[in-house]
Amino acid sequence: MADHPVRADGPSDSGSGRHRVVIVGGGFAGLYAARKLGRDPAVEVTLIDRRNYHLFQPLLYQVATGALSPGDIAQPLRAILRRNKNTRVVLGEAVGLDPVGRRVALSDGGTVDYDTLLVATGARHAYFGHDEWATLAPGLKTIEDATEIRRRILIAYEAAEREADPLRRAEWMTFVVVGGGPTGVELAGALGEISRDTLRRDFRSIRPADARVLLVEALDRVLPTYPESLSRSAGRQLVRLGVTVRTGTKVTEIDESGIAVSVQSDGAERTERIPTRTVLWAAGVQASSFGRRVAEALGVETKVDRAGRVPVDADLTVPGHPEVMILGDLAIAKRQGGKPVPGVAPAAIQEGTYAAESILRRVRGQTPEPFRYRDKGDVAVIGRLSGVADIRWLGRFGRRSGFLAWGMWLGVHIVYLIGFANRLVVIIRWAWSFLTHGRGTRLITGEPHLPPIKQPEHLD
Amino acid sequence: MADHPVRADGPSDSGSGRHRVVIVGGGFAGLYAARKLGRDPAVEVTLIDRRNYHLFQPLLYQVATGALSPGDIAQPLRAILRRNKNTRVVLGEAVGLDPVGRRVALSDGGTVDYDTLLVATGARHAYFGHDEWATLAPGLKTIEDATEIRRRILIAYEAAEREADPLRRAEWMTFVVVGGGPTGVELAGALGEISRDTLRRDFRSIRPADARVLLVEALDRVLPTYPESLSRSAGRQLVRLGVTVRTGTKVTEIDESGIAVSVQSDGAERTERIPTRTVLWAAGVQASSFGRRVAEALGVETKVDRAGRVPVDADLTVPGHPEVMILGDLAIAKRQGGKPVPGVAPAAIQEGTYAAESILRRVRGQTPEPFRYRDKGDVAVIGRLSGVADIRWLGRFGRRSGFLAWGMWLGVHIVYLIGFANRLVVIIRWAWSFLTHGRGTRLITGEPHLPPIKQPEHLD
Repeated sequence: MADHPVRADGPSDSGSGRHRVVIVGGGFAGLYAARKLGRDPAVEVTLIDRRNYHLFQPLLYQVATGALSPGDIAQPLRAILRRNKNTRVVLGEAVGLDPVGRRVALSDGGTVDYDTLLVATGARHAYFGHDEWATLAPGLKTIEDATEIRRRILIAYEAAEREADPLRRAEWMTFVVVGGGPTGVELAGALGEISRDTLRRDFRSIRPADARVLLVEALDRVLPTYPESLSRSAGRQLVRLGVTVRTGTKVTEIDESGIAVSVQSDGAERTERIPTRTVLWAAGVQASSFGRRVAEALGVETKVDRAGRVPVDADLTVPGHPEVMILGDLAIAKRQGGKPVPGVAPAAIQEGTYAAESILRRVRGQTPEPFRYRDKGDVAVIGRLSGVADIRWLGRFGRRSGFLAWGMWLGVHIVYLIGFANRLVVIIRWAWSFLTHGRGTRLITGEPHLPPIKQPEHLD
Repeated sequence: MADHPVRADGPSDSGSGRHRVVIVGGGFAGLYAARKLGRDPAVEVTLIDRRNYHLFQPLLYQVATGALSPGDIAQPLRAILRRNKNTRVVLGEAVGLDPVGRRVALSDGGTVDYDTLLVATGARHAYFGHDEWATLAPGLKTIEDATEIRRRILIAYEAAEREADPLRRAEWMTFVVVGGGPTGVELAGALGEISRDTLRRDFRSIRPADARVLLVEALDRVLPTYPESLSRSAGRQLVRLGVTVRTGTKVTEIDESGIAVSVQSDGAERTERIPTRTVLWAAGVQASSFGRRVAEALGVETKVDRAGRVPVDADLTVPGHPEVMILGDLAIAKRQGGKPVPGVAPAAIQEGTYAAESILRRVRGQTPEPFRYRDKGDVAVIGRLSGVADIRWLGRFGRRSGFLAWGMWLGVHIVYLIGFANRLVVIIRWAWSFLTHGRGTRLITGEPHLPPIKQPEHLD
């Protein structure tokens, strides 16, 4: 056991003189920080996560829509960090912080001491005060979310195939995606493709292409963080996939058989009901509960945005607490010009890497530079061979839509996908789907309970 | 919709004059029957399954041990059968049979009429009257079983890593597999490999190689259906992977912290307790509940074996019911010499194909030949580069162990794996695991609730 320096029951290693870095959260920010710190003998790293794997979240919508398997976009944290002898992975849930004793409390009673704490527990979607919508309209943040959404989409088609009543059948064949950001656009595009293409020949009583896919967005355009020309292009590409884009439309009610929306048109507001059995949530953002506890324990003002995220200084530390850094979606970091750093994977990766470098500098007595966000641009994919891209450093020439954007998206996602086998597997699944117009992993898992369906007495 | 001949709400197609074949169960037997029947315009096929996918069960233990992802070994039934215009897939649970009206009842109140019924709902493992063991010692028949077993194995190592008490840590690091048939041997071999190889560098407080893996078998050797020399070889190969093989050992009790076994030695019997937190069940066989209902409705004697399986005639029909065939693990079919057809995938495939041919002959007024089982032999894999094979038609020369057996196993499983993308993905995952000694898909999914662990107050 001589090669296992850190032991749960052994003597404390705090006497080793090594700087103890505790990272909470194994998402992009936490993982990239751990990887960077992992080979430096001056530090001792503990990575705490409730899950035993790192999840490649940008591809989660592909699991939700049956194109990839959970195992394709997740890698065990222990496997990624196995060679980092100074690093220990703890499967556990951080629930409390003692900022004076510099100690993180876990849900099972254990504690972990730190010299520097990196909090990278991310954010979830927000239901804007309607938490009761969570079960009616699942969001997409975890693998369980993704398989649940996949299940609902597939069950809806199965139910429609069995349903005799045309009105109820139409309810099953209506899919509503709430939120026109990248996730909502990608989900709606995939839903359009599923109905038009993937399931084309799979059923005998329904025509999947008759399905209605609605993308509901409260603002006046989809992808509101993109340049307006790309938003327009994305809208057109969605329409081509059969998606009905409803901008200026706010969801006011959700129940089991439909949603109510309030529509802005010509200054007036009217209410409308849309019957549907499948509502997917891709809106809002809300700080993780551990993130909010950290802010509270440190006395940080989080009212800055209603999502409860934590404002940080230029070096990503919490004001007044140089030993605590907030990274990724949980942080409100500012760019040089004062604009906020966006909540996207490349930003989290940069912040994680920066945090590690900054710690290593401080351990060596140097002063870290402030964090500098390098905005490489945005890419979103909208179904087969199409998408939008905004590559900032190319200026106006970097704004692309269609095939070129799709190709960029493909390249970026394959390069960043962690794990060589995952990468190859994803490439093969994509190539296969592309050639066959299929989606191989559309499994309905979990105990098979079908929704109650009004059906004809005889099936044949 | 003109190209969709069968409609749930449309007029009954029974007037079409086509012979209506209803298949219950989309496993090997049911699926191969459906594929063979699928392009013949003389018949009209309905395939009923509770799941929307066909599962390649021989590789299920690889999902349970983190080498493959569920999506790698499952394919949507609709996708496999999409080109068969005479075939309709019904996602539903068959719960009853009216043999006079020739009608199958579904759990949601629907019914399906048949001219010929193929029942291929398989078998589950049996707890020999101890159904309360089901939650303590999960068996391996479904994808949910596999991810639950994967979860338990991984959580056990995580718990051991956190556990301060050496005795309790040893409990977490003891894995018991009950049943020395092919599934038990493959599971135990994989568990041995996980402890010795896969997780070697993943932990800091425990040495995964210290894990104890026990294979408990009531008979006097593992793989009792194989020739004795191969059983002995399999035993040796297991020992090389660190597995303790306990033959002549019967499980008499299972609870949350261990099992009790009764051991036969030198004619005497003694009881022994083995503390463990992880018991996996790979013993016994028991007819599916729909299978038993069918036997009851048709008045067939199923007391022939205690598993409740259904004896069939030489043409796989139920005695006195030429319109009902029982296929796969649910059937007790006899070979020419009188020996039973084994409950393995190749037998189910042959039976499914035979059933389809037999129906097509009868529809054309011909008399079907009796079913002839072609025994190609058995292969079981035991970890990396080893296994046992008994290729019957090669006689004594077909009995192989070690590398050659492993190679045969590899070839056979890749050839029979349905779906081109699945096949390539599986090859890549295997190649990658082989080169890196890793298992990429070891995800703990489901809501993250850790077992209560007695742990040190401080982790570091």
